[in-house]
Amino acid sequence: MDYSPILRLGAQTLEFPQPIGIAEWATVAGPAEGMGRYGGQYDIQLKDDLMNQDSWEKAERQMFEAAARCCLSKAGVGINEVDLLLGGDLLNQIVTAGYAARELGIPFLGLYAACATSAAALGLGSVMLHSGCANKVLTGVASHFATAERQYRNPLELGSDRPPTAQRTVTGAGAFLLQQGNLPVRVTHFTIGEVVDWNITDANDMGAAMAPAAAQTVCTHLAETGRHPKEYDRIVTGDLGSHGSNLFLELVNQSGHDLAERHLDCGERIFTQDQEVQSGGSGCACGPLVLAATLLPQLQRGALRRILLVTTGALLSPTTSLQGESIPGIAHAVTLEGGAPTC
Amino acid sequence: MDYSPILRLGAQTLEFPQPIGIAEWATVAGPAEGMGRYGGQYDIQLKDDLMNQDSWEKAERQMFEAAARCCLSKAGVGINEVDLLLGGDLLNQIVTAGYAARELGIPFLGLYAACATSAAALGLGSVMLHSGCANKVLTGVASHFATAERQYRNPLELGSDRPPTAQRTVTGAGAFLLQQGNLPVRVTHFTIGEVVDWNITDANDMGAAMAPAAAQTVCTHLAETGRHPKEYDRIVTGDLGSHGSNLFLELVNQSGHDLAERHLDCGERIFTQDQEVQSGGSGCACGPLVLAATLLPQLQRGALRRILLVTTGALLSPTTSLQGESIPGIAHAVTLEGGAPTC
Repeated sequence: MDYSPILRLGAQTLEFPQPIGIAEWATVAGPAEGMGRYGGQYDIQLKDDLMNQDSWEKAERQMFEAAARCCLSKAGVGINEVDLLLGGDLLNQIVTAGYAARELGIPFLGLYAACATSAAALGLGSVMLHSGCANKVLTGVASHFATAERQYRNPLELGSDRPPTAQRTVTGAGAFLLQQGNLPVRVTHFTIGEVVDWNITDANDMGAAMAPAAAQTVCTHLAETGRHPKEYDRIVTGDLGSHGSNLFLELVNQSGHDLAERHLDCGERIFTQDQEVQSGGSGCACGPLVLAATLLPQLQRGALRRILLVTTGALLSPTTSLQGESIPGIAHAVTLEGGAPTC
Repeated sequence: MDYSPILRLGAQTLEFPQPIGIAEWATVAGPAEGMGRYGGQYDIQLKDDLMNQDSWEKAERQMFEAAARCCLSKAGVGINEVDLLLGGDLLNQIVTAGYAARELGIPFLGLYAACATSAAALGLGSVMLHSGCANKVLTGVASHFATAERQYRNPLELGSDRPPTAQRTVTGAGAFLLQQGNLPVRVTHFTIGEVVDWNITDANDMGAAMAPAAAQTVCTHLAETGRHPKEYDRIVTGDLGSHGSNLFLELVNQSGHDLAERHLDCGERIFTQDQEVQSGGSGCACGPLVLAATLLPQLQRGALRRILLVTTGALLSPTTSLQGESIPGIAHAVTLEGGAPTC
């Protein structure tokens, strides 16, 4: 096969000389997500967010594993054919991905980028494929409303009030199978994020903490690829929520980009307005669920030709919050192209 | 430049067609480590494990940042010349690496493999370099006795007794600068670990939890490279401690490999016997400190020609321990060669 190095377009953006295909995907969605805007479009919709386990943490890893197995099953690929699992989650020590990797038995590299993990995994998986390290890479992420609240804020049993800027962590998991080839959905670019911190200290205002990182990554991506926003059918952010999305749009506007018409935030979209989720959804699984439910199918049939997926992570810990630290954000982005390959 | 894909030697092992150089390295060591076996061989030795900060967590990230800056300074490389930072630590949400990445301002991919992170970062960094994603990659890890005890077991203030299988988390940080070229120290192979779980549930017996993963990775590496242990001057494990090392040697023995003469465990070596550290040292920084203090200099001058560095991680969280879960282990390995290149 013709082989050439990955192209560096600037400080943060990589271009794959041969596009990497997203061969298949699968999602598991919690009960509230199933009642949301994309209900009916997830592969597995849970009626019970405990999945018959005795803790939500165990349920979360069951979701991760179920998404992975469902994805491989849909692709007709055996677990033994997968060379590498890349993934992570929001729980301490990424135990969701770690225990799921134990069950799946695939060589595993654990990533942590908070809710930005999914694009980091798709980008890094594409690097591993392009460079010959793997023929098939599985990426996966999961998050769970109950485990995330317990760990980052307060246990649900406490019944704490939630301010309007708060977001509801999505209960769900997404898995993606990457392989080489000009498939109907392809990864063409990977923009690696920098840590950006605008001194937000409110753990109930993640959107504001992440918006500057999203703006930095998007503006850098556009500058380094030399592209205009209109060359993308959608600029998709992972989980800024309505509050964070407004900030994001204002920040990119200050850099001369008007994205209002083509911006879509998965956190703003995943639930319906009558679900009372304040500023919207969040979590590792938020972007992947919306991506798999609606965006990838549109790319696959050519209804969308090119999108930029920008997942956003808040790199806080409960300890740093208690110690009065600000919340740094990071955003990783991948360009996804759909329809018949043009080259 | 002549360019070819990375070679896959089997399910877990990658071979780099052109070796990746470790151009420079730097370490920061805590007070106890400075009094240990390699005292005087660290770049920065702390007299105060708070580093004039008001929390140990802040001290830990200062160590990470100091190791990174020291490494670049020794190499005569500016921060702006570094394309990518790969790293992690033991704290929840890898905040040490995250906050340090914010200060350093380098595009950042966060990894989590517990104490196996350093070899994962060296291996992944080598992939990024080989594939053209970067010209210079900085890898970094840090750990701190006080932050790790507080998070994983009990706060030091509690004065808990420690059983003989317990290990002392190393206070320190290590940074490594990778770049292409036939330098005196080179990464030639990367074996990606699988999660292995032998049902150990004692959070004070990490060595036993990690030994099976180390044995799996080492035996797989030898099988996939078709090499005999005698082709390595040292097989170096990260932090099994004396207890875990015995188990590791027995396990590899059962697979037909007698490693007793060439095995060295960094956790067993980093402290002296009169330091009362039970089974030895542990932590993300344990392997890197010993590597940088003694092994890399020996490789550099050709006194060692080839070693296998196998860092080992226990993928538990305090929550999973409280929920009665067993402790899965993972071990990632890189082959390091020294002296004048033979090819």
